[in-house]
Amino acid sequence: MREITKDTQLCISLSARPTNIGTRFHNHLYEVLDLDFIYKAFTTDDITQAIAGVRGLGIRGCAVSMPWKEDVIAMVDEMADSAVAIQSVNTIVNNAGHLTAYNTDYQAIYDLLDSHNVRPGSFAVLGSGGMAKAAVAALTNAGFGPGTVVARNETSGRALAEQYGHTWRPTADGLETSLVLNATPVGMAGGPAQDELAVHESVIAQANVIFDVVAFPSETPLVLAARALGKPVITGAEVIALQAAEQFVLYTGVRPTHDQVAEASRISRA
Amino acid sequence: MREITKDTQLCISLSARPTNIGTRFHNHLYEVLDLDFIYKAFTTDDITQAIAGVRGLGIRGCAVSMPWKEDVIAMVDEMADSAVAIQSVNTIVNNAGHLTAYNTDYQAIYDLLDSHNVRPGSFAVLGSGGMAKAAVAALTNAGFGPGTVVARNETSGRALAEQYGHTWRPTADGLETSLVLNATPVGMAGGPAQDELAVHESVIAQANVIFDVVAFPSETPLVLAARALGKPVITGAEVIALQAAEQFVLYTGVRPTHDQVAEASRISRA
Repeated sequence: MREITKDTQLCISLSARPTNIGTRFHNHLYEVLDLDFIYKAFTTDDITQAIAGVRGLGIRGCAVSMPWKEDVIAMVDEMADSAVAIQSVNTIVNNAGHLTAYNTDYQAIYDLLDSHNVRPGSFAVLGSGGMAKAAVAALTNAGFGPGTVVARNETSGRALAEQYGHTWRPTADGLETSLVLNATPVGMAGGPAQDELAVHESVIAQANVIFDVVAFPSETPLVLAARALGKPVITGAEVIALQAAEQFVLYTGVRPTHDQVAEASRISRA
Repeated sequence: MREITKDTQLCISLSARPTNIGTRFHNHLYEVLDLDFIYKAFTTDDITQAIAGVRGLGIRGCAVSMPWKEDVIAMVDEMADSAVAIQSVNTIVNNAGHLTAYNTDYQAIYDLLDSHNVRPGSFAVLGSGGMAKAAVAALTNAGFGPGTVVARNETSGRALAEQYGHTWRPTADGLETSLVLNATPVGMAGGPAQDELAVHESVIAQANVIFDVVAFPSETPLVLAARALGKPVITGAEVIALQAAEQFVLYTGVRPTHDQVAEASRISRA
């Protein structure tokens, strides 16, 4: 690693339960690309003071995770289109004290649909939280539809569906749709439903593409079941790597190659 | 350098014109002592937001330089004796959100008088700024006196002298005193008086010890003149290294050896 100096730029993340993933991902790429940056994950018990610190210390970039993705909207100076689209922020860029908010999850989902050559068609998004919002917005803006939001919470589920002219339903039973995107924590390591399938196998069987945004593990029960049925799959590991790569570009102005991102992603999850 | 992780602790400095000295000093010792810390110098245009960031991001330690040494008093939770003594802060330690302020310049001057075996006696301090305050407080508390504060600014000079029962005078002409301590910028590299002697050679000649707190260069015209006259000398390079070592102990709880401090100091000034 290159020596830290007074001119080294700091980028950080703020999350309730920090991991080493982003720290490893960004620091690896700084080293490979010989950029005078360092990255470190932080948590906070006062998001207002933490964002004040981003300004006061001239911290170049700040990733924002649960539960502050909406709170920080009031603290920035400008919302980029990606953050406006879903009213949720996962990235802040500091240009000489002017903070601009982005949502690179939205961008990553949008781009992955394209890079995997998924043709627009009907879809169902499971969940109604921040990542579900990003997914519905990305799918809609990429020309997908008709859409269904599947969420036990009728209030948030119906609101998300109707915002984009889609329909809401409380369960996935009997769902007939081309693309199934899981934006619930079902299948997430350490969660209460880590060994469960996000939808019944029959729903997987009738779909053309399965997209799981759960990143840990990347091979969730849903992903494994879809692979077993020979379905094309997009994983949460791809989302997290691509959104991190987009953050990297926003912070540094340098775009790493696909192979560099893949290697950084591999190292960061090791 | 060891890998940065989510658990790595960050220490910083805040100064109007950051240098690489502290960054190199601390990072070198973290590496030698295998401590999971990183250090970086920052500047700020909003000291209130910067200190909010120390709290909000859980930054472990923060060195404070001109011009904020008095401003931060209102922002901390507790003042240690060393900061109370001179109402000036150069170090903040963050214990789980509780900020305690110290002045390690005071401590370093106090300790150097002892380690150089300087016996208490009369003294003159040149200057009436923050470092002069630290020097007068340290000398007085170490039993030195009677003391003289030499300062062109009568208001601050007289106030500092009288606070400790010493006398003020506007110039050093004709001064008779055992220890002469320069706490003005005279002799500082890049300053308007970098090639000047802080006091007339006759004052140096009659003194027993010369103490210059100017750290760049360590061999100021005053130090060189004193050495030429065979006088014992204490330099600003010793002050800056010792005060940084005291900060290091406050932040990490680990005391480096004298040799480790000397080597870190050498590297940081290279």
